Amino acid sequence: MTASPDLAQAVIRGQYRALAQAVSLVEREDPAAERLLAEIYSSTGRARIIGITGSPGAGKSTLVAALAKHYRARKMRVGIIAVDPTSPFTGGAILGDRIRMADLYTDRGVFIRSMATRGFMGGLAKATNDVVDLLDASGFDIVIVETVGVGQDEVDIIRTVQSNIVLLVPGMGDDIQAIKAGIMEIGDVFAVNKADRPGADRTVNEITMMMSLVEEHGDWIPPIVKTVASTNQGTGDLDAAIGKHFDHLQTSGELDRRNRERVRIRIETMLKEKFMDRLIGKTITRADYEQLLDDVLRKKGNPHDAAEGLLARISFGR
Amino acid sequence: MTASPDLAQAVIRGQYRALAQAVSLVEREDPAAERLLAEIYSSTGRARIIGITGSPGAGKSTLVAALAKHYRARKMRVGIIAVDPTSPFTGGAILGDRIRMADLYTDRGVFIRSMATRGFMGGLAKATNDVVDLLDASGFDIVIVETVGVGQDEVDIIRTVQSNIVLLVPGMGDDIQAIKAGIMEIGDVFAVNKADRPGADRTVNEITMMMSLVEEHGDWIPPIVKTVASTNQGTGDLDAAIGKHFDHLQTSGELDRRNRERVRIRIETMLKEKFMDRLIGKTITRADYEQLLDDVLRKKGNPHDAAEGLLARISFGR
Repeated sequence: MTASPDLAQAVIRGQYRALAQAVSLVEREDPAAERLLAEIYSSTGRARIIGITGSPGAGKSTLVAALAKHYRARKMRVGIIAVDPTSPFTGGAILGDRIRMADLYTDRGVFIRSMATRGFMGGLAKATNDVVDLLDASGFDIVIVETVGVGQDEVDIIRTVQSNIVLLVPGMGDDIQAIKAGIMEIGDVFAVNKADRPGADRTVNEITMMMSLVEEHGDWIPPIVKTVASTNQGTGDLDAAIGKHFDHLQTSGELDRRNRERVRIRIETMLKEKFMDRLIGKTITRADYEQLLDDVLRKKGNPHDAAEGLLARISFGR
Repeated sequence: MTASPDLAQAVIRGQYRALAQAVSLVEREDPAAERLLAEIYSSTGRARIIGITGSPGAGKSTLVAALAKHYRARKMRVGIIAVDPTSPFTGGAILGDRIRMADLYTDRGVFIRSMATRGFMGGLAKATNDVVDLLDASGFDIVIVETVGVGQDEVDIIRTVQSNIVLLVPGMGDDIQAIKAGIMEIGDVFAVNKADRPGADRTVNEITMMMSLVEEHGDWIPPIVKTVASTNQGTGDLDAAIGKHFDHLQTSGELDRRNRERVRIRIETMLKEKFMDRLIGKTITRADYEQLLDDVLRKKGNPHDAAEGLLARISFGR
């Protein structure tokens, strides 16, 4: 499978098979992927990019499925990218989940891809962003990215979505403080899932309390929505909250700011990666670079001088 | 306060005030800090660097204090770096914690620093590593780094410690799955703290079960230790487990591999940061760079070509 000259056009026309082929190129880190991504880029910018962050077992995938059906009923096309390696979308599913999601898998208005495969050279965050672009260019109205929210790649991914939903479940007791210290600050909307369980209101209160400890909200106070994803309760409320957040993003200028930040992160990530690739090979051989690391490890040098020494060999132009 | 020419020597001789001054230079990102760090680097490499990762409320700081006292009783000097912004070491302490830790604060064999201040330009991970180096060079035998384990910086920090202890508490129920999916893989030793609470054994079993799901352990199976940090129970067992892990690191060659990885991360982080600094300024003005971002945002370009265009202006030497 290679990128045919008109693959980009076929993706932009919304052809499902072309999209699947393009996504595979990105996943295999095929050299043709970069050119393809450059070609489709001008057709991006229309999709709503939503992140759903929560612990395994919180019901993320079930909620994603419920939201996807909600949007499908409104004739919107929905892309789903599962980054959580324990996600049912990833294939490690229990039977019930599979059955619940079966109709999504046969619907050509839904594109599901798991990015759980490890070892993307260019980074999981870059690969995920590339697939978001492909879905966007291919006319998908909504792209949902599902993450656990732990780890460098996932945090990088969350930084590039437009609205991030943080999913919690009742009955975490003392532990709510626990997980969420880092996560409270990245939630644009909070969903308390499995809200038919005892303690849902307490969880809502705890989130409110935790939120009061976060210093900066700007002028957006994240709403808290109760859901029971497995029986589809609260899905409409959640969509409404997401919609309100999107309105806020637009009217406040924050959407532009986030999109700009997304562009910045993408370009700088690429710059840094390509820089390291060229440095090792052009400025120093791989063998000499490994030797340099050894020398620093053996105290025959130090990290600061090693870095400066390499950079001194580079001419930055102008 | 500036770096006197012999500040590096005073740090290496183990002078407490010189160390405090050097740490302040790093914290203020004083230009003199880089040279100082290069000068002390050859004196590093003797300290044991231990990470303690756990949720706020899990009792990390209490356990760190218990371990610190354990090592002090053995005449070892102990550095403590708190990265968790909710840590009692950071000053947001409740009175009980403060009292428990009061004798540590007056002991010149203990150096405590909170790195919770936001906005290190060069990154929190770099600043933390720099302080670890200063403590190491200054003759501290043990350096304990306390993190929540959420977020990009913290994951970067955890990647550079020698032994990482993951702290859990009983009674997390279903939720243990929750938090720990990402964290299970970074634990060299697990501590179940507050083990006098009901459910401690169940938590131990759950960790064992979760651990069986992690594919790669190499030949080290992380031990699980029960502790009650507030009454100092299990501290000796925990130290023994850490000691065994250190023996394993040495005999397996893993210590060398981790130290080498630490050097690699440090050099590459510096290279990428310094590269971006020079690129913007030397290759392109800040104003032109912001314009480039705007152009990509407005689809007058794409991230791929923008990055390639900048890199094409750079000569990589040889």
